[in-house]
Amino acid sequence: MRRFVSGVLSSYQKRSLSHRSLRFFSSTTSLSNSDSPSSSSSAAMPTPVTLETINPKVLECEYAVRGEIVTLAQRLQQELQEKPGSLPFDEILYCNIGNPQSLGQQPITFFREVIALCDHPPILDKSETQGLFSADAIERAWQILDQIPGRATGAYSHSQGIKGLRDTIAAGIEARDGFPSNPNDIFLTDGASPAVHMMMQLLIRTEKDGILCPIPQYPLYSASIVLHGGTLVPYYLDEATGWGLEISELQKQLEDAKSKGITVRALVVINPGNPTGQVLSEDNQRDIVEFCKKEGLVLLADEVYQENVYVPDKKFHSFKKISRSMGYGEEDISVVSFQSVSKGYYGECGKRGGYMEVTGFGADVREQIYKVASVNLCSNITGQILASLVMSPPKVGDESYESYFMEKDGILSSLARRAKTLEDALNSLEGVTCNKAEGAMYLFPRIHLPEKAIKAAEAAKTAPDAFYARRLLNATGIVVVPGSGFGQVPGTWHFRCTILPQEDKIPAVVSRLTEFHKGFMEEFRD
Amino acid sequence: MRRFVSGVLSSYQKRSLSHRSLRFFSSTTSLSNSDSPSSSSSAAMPTPVTLETINPKVLECEYAVRGEIVTLAQRLQQELQEKPGSLPFDEILYCNIGNPQSLGQQPITFFREVIALCDHPPILDKSETQGLFSADAIERAWQILDQIPGRATGAYSHSQGIKGLRDTIAAGIEARDGFPSNPNDIFLTDGASPAVHMMMQLLIRTEKDGILCPIPQYPLYSASIVLHGGTLVPYYLDEATGWGLEISELQKQLEDAKSKGITVRALVVINPGNPTGQVLSEDNQRDIVEFCKKEGLVLLADEVYQENVYVPDKKFHSFKKISRSMGYGEEDISVVSFQSVSKGYYGECGKRGGYMEVTGFGADVREQIYKVASVNLCSNITGQILASLVMSPPKVGDESYESYFMEKDGILSSLARRAKTLEDALNSLEGVTCNKAEGAMYLFPRIHLPEKAIKAAEAAKTAPDAFYARRLLNATGIVVVPGSGFGQVPGTWHFRCTILPQEDKIPAVVSRLTEFHKGFMEEFRD
Repeated sequence: MRRFVSGVLSSYQKRSLSHRSLRFFSSTTSLSNSDSPSSSSSAAMPTPVTLETINPKVLECEYAVRGEIVTLAQRLQQELQEKPGSLPFDEILYCNIGNPQSLGQQPITFFREVIALCDHPPILDKSETQGLFSADAIERAWQILDQIPGRATGAYSHSQGIKGLRDTIAAGIEARDGFPSNPNDIFLTDGASPAVHMMMQLLIRTEKDGILCPIPQYPLYSASIVLHGGTLVPYYLDEATGWGLEISELQKQLEDAKSKGITVRALVVINPGNPTGQVLSEDNQRDIVEFCKKEGLVLLADEVYQENVYVPDKKFHSFKKISRSMGYGEEDISVVSFQSVSKGYYGECGKRGGYMEVTGFGADVREQIYKVASVNLCSNITGQILASLVMSPPKVGDESYESYFMEKDGILSSLARRAKTLEDALNSLEGVTCNKAEGAMYLFPRIHLPEKAIKAAEAAKTAPDAFYARRLLNATGIVVVPGSGFGQVPGTWHFRCTILPQEDKIPAVVSRLTEFHKGFMEEFRD
Repeated sequence: MRRFVSGVLSSYQKRSLSHRSLRFFSSTTSLSNSDSPSSSSSAAMPTPVTLETINPKVLECEYAVRGEIVTLAQRLQQELQEKPGSLPFDEILYCNIGNPQSLGQQPITFFREVIALCDHPPILDKSETQGLFSADAIERAWQILDQIPGRATGAYSHSQGIKGLRDTIAAGIEARDGFPSNPNDIFLTDGASPAVHMMMQLLIRTEKDGILCPIPQYPLYSASIVLHGGTLVPYYLDEATGWGLEISELQKQLEDAKSKGITVRALVVINPGNPTGQVLSEDNQRDIVEFCKKEGLVLLADEVYQENVYVPDKKFHSFKKISRSMGYGEEDISVVSFQSVSKGYYGECGKRGGYMEVTGFGADVREQIYKVASVNLCSNITGQILASLVMSPPKVGDESYESYFMEKDGILSSLARRAKTLEDALNSLEGVTCNKAEGAMYLFPRIHLPEKAIKAAEAAKTAPDAFYARRLLNATGIVVVPGSGFGQVPGTWHFRCTILPQEDKIPAVVSRLTEFHKGFMEEFRD
C-alpha cells in the first residue's frame, strides 16, 4: 500500500521504481553493485565516496582559471605573509582572472549608494542620509523599492527576477540596440555562469548533442558542456587575422561533427572575446547570424564585455540587434544574450548579478526554462538591482551624472592605456607575439618556446605553457593562465594575462615580466 | 593540423571527437540525426528547440512550490490590481512558500545595518553614520572588511567563500554543537539549493544511483535528482506517529532498491521537517547515523530550519554533533549539513546566502567539490556576509543585543503562536487532521475528501488535492501547495500551508479557510 506515492511525484516515482527498475533488472548481470561498499555491512567501512565512485563528469571537467597555478599562488601568498622577504617579490599579482576590484579598482559610487540604501531602507527618510548619499541615489532606491512587492528586498522574487527591474533592463537594451526588448524575455541570474549552465542543461540531452565553441574559449563553456554530458565541437579562431572568426571554419567543423553523428544544437560566440580580446565586425556578426539561421542553431552570445571596447574603430553590437537589423524576428532565430555585472567598467564580480535575454523560443520551451529557474527560487536581489543599474546608469542632468561619468571614463580609459602598454611590452619580448586587445580584459600572447624549454616541461611532466607560467609565478609573483586551459592550436603555446593591475603597477609588471622572460630565454635558448 | 587542441582541453577534446565519435559511429544507424532540423538547410526553418528536442530531464522535473497554483494566483493578483473588488477577496495570501518577508516579516536590523555598511564602506568613517547605524554594526562591518582581501566586497572571493567569514561560521557551529568545525569544510553558496545540487551532481553517475528521500519531501530534492539523472528512493514518514522516521522503513526501502540493482548513495533527512514540521528526537537521530554508517551512505542533512523549533520538549541537534557525540569522526561517516539565511528568524530569502559543511570526505574528493564550485567562481558576497552574521549574531553586552533579541524573540514566539492557532483551526475542520508543527514553517494537514469531490477532480482532470487547493484559492485568495507536489501515501490527500501570514491576519485566514471548507464539504458531501 505504501509502495507508490500519488500525484505529481508518483508519475516519475513510478517510473523510477517500476519502469526503471525493470530496465535495471534485465541488465543487473553486468552491475558491480554486489561488491559496492553500500552493500557490505562491516563495521569499519571506509567512506563510500572516492574518486572512483563519484560522477565521472565531475572528474573530467576542468577550470584552469582557478587551477593549479592559482593554488600555487595562494601558497606563495601565505608564505609571504608568514615570512616577508622570503621570496623574490613582495606581492602576488593575480592576472589570472577578470576580477578588477581584487586589484584595487573602486566600485562606481552611485551603484553602491543605491544598493546600500536598498539593503537598509529605514535610513532612507532620515535627515543624516542626505549628507551621506546623493539625492538621485536616494530617489533611485525609492523607485526600486516601489518596484518590489511589499518593498521586501529580503523576499524571494519572481523566479525570472523582479518585474520592475526587468522592465528597466529591457528599456536599457532597447536604448542600446534601437530594437524592442520584452521584460518577459529577461531571466536574472547570479552572474552569467548559472545562465550558461541553464542553457546547456536545456539543450544537451546526451553526448550526441554538440555545442560549437571557439578555441581558445573561456573554460566555463567546456566545463559546463562536460558537466551536462554533451560534446564540445571546437571551431578555431584565426590568430593570424587577429583571432578572426571564419564562417568556413564553422561550416567545416559543423559538417565534421554531423558526419560523426553529432547533432550540433548551438553556437557559442564570445564578443568581445575571452581570452582573445577581439571585437567582431558588424559584417562578421551578420554572417554568423546567417549561419545560425541556415543551420538552425541557437546563438549563445556571451556579451558580458559589451562595455569593454578600447579601440575607436570598433563598436559593440549585440547579436540580437544585428539579427533584428537583418529583418529576423522571434520566429526566425533563437538568440540568447548573456550579460553580467562582473565586467564592464563596474567590475562587480562579488555581487553575482547578471541576466540572459532569451529570444526566439516558443512559449512552451520558455516555460521549461522558467521551471528550472524556479527550482532555485530566484537570483540574489542585490545582484538583480545592480543588473538594473548597469543597464540604466545616471543620465545627463542627474546629480550623480558627472561623478559617475568621471569614474566610468577613468576606468575605461585607464584600461585602454594598460592594454596598449602591456601589448607593446609583450610584443617587444623575444619570441612573443600578441594581438591587439580591442576589448574585454585580457591579452593572449603566443610564446614561441625553445625546444629545450619544451623538453624541460616534458621532464617535469607538465605542458610547456604551464611550465612557463609556473616559472613566471615563482620568479615574479605574476599569475597568468596557461593557454592550454583555453585550448590552442597544437604545437602553439600561449598564456592569458589580464590588463587589470592598477596603472601605477603596470611599469613593475612590465619590467618583472621582461626580466623574467629574458632570463628564461637565456636558460633555455636552443 | 588544426583538428585537435593541446593541453588540458585536448584530453577530453580528443575523447569527444575521436573516442566518442568512434562510439557514435558504431551506433549511428539508430540515430535520427539525419532528419533533425539542424541538418536540413531550408531557408524558412522553425526554431530547432521544441519540447521534443530539449533535455528530457528538464521536461520531467517538477517543482510544485512554484507550480500551476502559483501561476493562477499571479493571474488573480493582476486581476485584483486591474479591477479591485472583482473577486471575493481583496488580497492574495501566499502560503505556498517559506518566504517570510514577502508577507511582512521585517529583517533583523543589525544584519541589515552591517550589510549596508559593507556595500558602501566610504560612509563608515563619516560622522553622520554614527547617527544612522549602531556602534556594533559599524564595528562588525570593519571586522568583516578586514577579513576581505583588499576590503574588496566587489571582488570574486575564494570559491568556498571568504576565509575569515568561514572562520566565523566554523566558530558558530562549534559554539552550537560543542564539537570542532573546520573552516575548510565550509562551502558558502547562493542559498542551500545550489549546495544540494552540487552534492547530487557529485554523487549521481547514472540512473542506477539512488538517493533515499523522505516522502513527503521538499521538491528541490526530487527535482535535483531528476535533473542529475538519478533515482529517488522513497522512504515514508509515518503520519500516524507525527511524521516519524522509522529505521525499519529505511532498511526496507534500501533493500528493495538494492534488489533492483540500484546503488543507494545517500540519505536525505530534513530536520526540522519540510513540509511536515516534525523535529527528530536525539535517539532517532542516533539511529539514523548508525544506519548511514552501517550502510555506507552519505548523510545529507537539510538543517535550514535549525532555528525554527516551537515546542519546549524538542531541541535542534545537528547530525554532525550527534555523530561526533557517538564517537564517530572524519574517517567513520560522511555528513553534509545544509544551512541557509532564508529561514530561521532571519528569513532573508532574497539575499541567497547559505553554506554546506562537508565532513568525512577524502581530500581528493573535496578537491573535486572545490573544482565544481570554482566553475561558478563564488557565491554572492552579501549572502556570504549574512551567513556569517546568522552564525554569529550580537552577544550579550553588545549595543544591538537587546534590540536584536527582541526582534528575534518577537518573530519566533509569534511563529509559534501562529503555528498553534492554524493547527487548531485545521484540526477543527470536518475530515481534516493536522500534526503538530514542532518546527520549520509549515503545516501539512491531511484532508479526507468525499468521494464526490474526488470524482469532480477526476472530471476536471486534476489531482483531488490540487482540485481542493484551486477551489480554496479561487474562493479565498489563500495559496497552498497540494500534497501531491511533495508525495504522499496513495489515496491520502494533503496540502502544505505556511504559518507565515502576519499575526493580525491569522484570524482572517482561519475564518476564510473555515468558511470555504464548510462550503466545500456541503457541496461535495457523499
